[in-house]
Amino acid sequence: MEPAHRVPNLSGGRFSATYLLSVPSTEVEAYARELAIEQTVEFPESHIPLGDIADQIVGRVESVEPAGASAYRVTISYADEIAGGELAQLLNIVYGNVALKPAVRLLAVAPSPGLARALPGPRCGISGLRARLGIPRRPILCTAIKPMGLSTQALADQALAYARGGIDVVKDDHGLTDQPFAPFRERVLRTLEALDRAARETGERTAYVANVTAGPPALLERARFAKDAGASALMVAPGIAGLAAIDALARDPALDLPILAHPSGWGHFAGDPRRGIAHRALFGHLLRLAGADGSIFVTHGGRFPDTPEDSREVVEGCRAPLAGYAPILPMAGGGVTVPRLEALVDELGSDLSLLVGGGLHTAGPDLIANCRAFRRKVERFA
Amino acid sequence: MEPAHRVPNLSGGRFSATYLLSVPSTEVEAYARELAIEQTVEFPESHIPLGDIADQIVGRVESVEPAGASAYRVTISYADEIAGGELAQLLNIVYGNVALKPAVRLLAVAPSPGLARALPGPRCGISGLRARLGIPRRPILCTAIKPMGLSTQALADQALAYARGGIDVVKDDHGLTDQPFAPFRERVLRTLEALDRAARETGERTAYVANVTAGPPALLERARFAKDAGASALMVAPGIAGLAAIDALARDPALDLPILAHPSGWGHFAGDPRRGIAHRALFGHLLRLAGADGSIFVTHGGRFPDTPEDSREVVEGCRAPLAGYAPILPMAGGGVTVPRLEALVDELGSDLSLLVGGGLHTAGPDLIANCRAFRRKVERFA
Repeated sequence: MEPAHRVPNLSGGRFSATYLLSVPSTEVEAYARELAIEQTVEFPESHIPLGDIADQIVGRVESVEPAGASAYRVTISYADEIAGGELAQLLNIVYGNVALKPAVRLLAVAPSPGLARALPGPRCGISGLRARLGIPRRPILCTAIKPMGLSTQALADQALAYARGGIDVVKDDHGLTDQPFAPFRERVLRTLEALDRAARETGERTAYVANVTAGPPALLERARFAKDAGASALMVAPGIAGLAAIDALARDPALDLPILAHPSGWGHFAGDPRRGIAHRALFGHLLRLAGADGSIFVTHGGRFPDTPEDSREVVEGCRAPLAGYAPILPMAGGGVTVPRLEALVDELGSDLSLLVGGGLHTAGPDLIANCRAFRRKVERFA
Repeated sequence: MEPAHRVPNLSGGRFSATYLLSVPSTEVEAYARELAIEQTVEFPESHIPLGDIADQIVGRVESVEPAGASAYRVTISYADEIAGGELAQLLNIVYGNVALKPAVRLLAVAPSPGLARALPGPRCGISGLRARLGIPRRPILCTAIKPMGLSTQALADQALAYARGGIDVVKDDHGLTDQPFAPFRERVLRTLEALDRAARETGERTAYVANVTAGPPALLERARFAKDAGASALMVAPGIAGLAAIDALARDPALDLPILAHPSGWGHFAGDPRRGIAHRALFGHLLRLAGADGSIFVTHGGRFPDTPEDSREVVEGCRAPLAGYAPILPMAGGGVTVPRLEALVDELGSDLSLLVGGGLHTAGPDLIANCRAFRRKVERFA
């Protein structure tokens, strides 16, 4: 073996990640150690240089606790410096090659002060969003312009109806990007014109959220266009554009807009309870570290298989204390209908957004009346 | 119902995706239809506008075929225009909200001529990579500089040893990004200096692959720096940076470098045989559509649980005909050791890269001698 190797400028600060390992008791210690190596040096243990690399750079198994039959909660800490102050690399450390392993699920991420300095998180959080919208307490009503295939004029007309009906936030459907039948720039401009008109009529401003999910460099170009045009927020699907796309928008000093995360392409990670990423970490911790201000998720009882416990985990991941990171807005969707609002608010609290899509169209023949009924119901939770 | 709605400028071109639906026969037709709606208009079926939206924009169930007990292969076609000529949106269509569904697995993507014009795919493919490396037939030897925590000088010294030992391609370990102990630019420059030195000694040029996995805009900045410095290729983990990061690099006219995809954060999609994305589509079709030239994957028999069938699927996804897209290089890693080379080449053919990491260090006390043994073994497959 070589003499002890030194790594300069290590602060000693460490962040950590907690995993569920579904392995027998005889294997858990070795599996945890293997994981700590895989996620960092990815090198044969016998050949890891002694000194700072072995002692600090390699992940450190901090605790192993039973979590049911043949399952353990394992916390591994990582030196702040290996994330290099970058969101993409943070994800690579806490959930990189883990993705290739069976029987490992990322449950939670615990940022350190050093990480929190490098990745400041949400620009607005719940309180900033509420202040911008002028809605201090009640659930925030959100819907989407859709379906794909409508012209920008038809989509703008729909936005006008939503606003007349008292919807707080109108977002692009996540399938609307920059297609020839509804080009991005034209859609943004016409929708904002429609919402301006409604604001003059009603005295209430409905916010518009532009979907900027795209690869680089289109993502940043669209975000800047939407900001300059007067959009109130941006939507990105991290499963499609990459989690670091959110970070790039949150850090862009020219933007100053809240960012909402959409679960398209992302929700899969939470699907299998033995692997992937738990709802709390996926829809909460990672999005907060990236700088999202709202987290769209699919609630139980809708058209997706998620359970009440999954929804509660999302809400907790968004709102519970996390190393000083601002709480972010859970946005409950995926088949929310007006009759379900009361039960959802009972279960998840009123500090959330209710995202009703198709349900607004099917509730009755008059879209504006349907929106008003939705709004009236929600006013009761003020 | 409204009168028939018209969507202007639809070409009639359609691409398709094939899914495995693990549902009983009584449910498969309804589930397939629901999926076709979810992935496109995401709107209550009763309210979908008649005419072009119902007939062309909504996904069309083209076939439903039994695939074992309570499982069906379902092919859905999509209008070219809904992908908007963008890789990110293509992914959103073929695997967007599907991510939230149980019992659906994306098996394959079949591009249309229109999609292939919009997304031209790999810049080099296998033949271009082989031409650039000057290796017409035999497996391409690849290894990584590691572990994380070494200085740029120590990493460059390691690259020098690899090159002296006859390794064809030296890549950054996927955990090396831009950390303070080995900053990106310094690492690229020193590693290239070391490989230049080796080339003068041996007369053979070892290629260097820079890991540019990062969020925007760092991704493009690092790629341009690496290109200008003389790197031979770029590596990106689409599970960390987003699949569209590969597309952005492949389309950047200033780059002209092959791109290798790393499975960190990406492999999870293939883990559950009933959901997610099959190896063929994940490590083959989607990467080719995005423009990757090589696909790093973990082989069976290494330290990950993948089976021989998984490896064969990856290889087929990379090399089999796909609507005129260039075949790309399967890069077998994840615990490949010198003793396993022969069996791997027997099973997967010689038109691949063998990625040996830790195995080169543990094979014997002299790293250069270990590399030479690896090279000699592989020369036999010429």
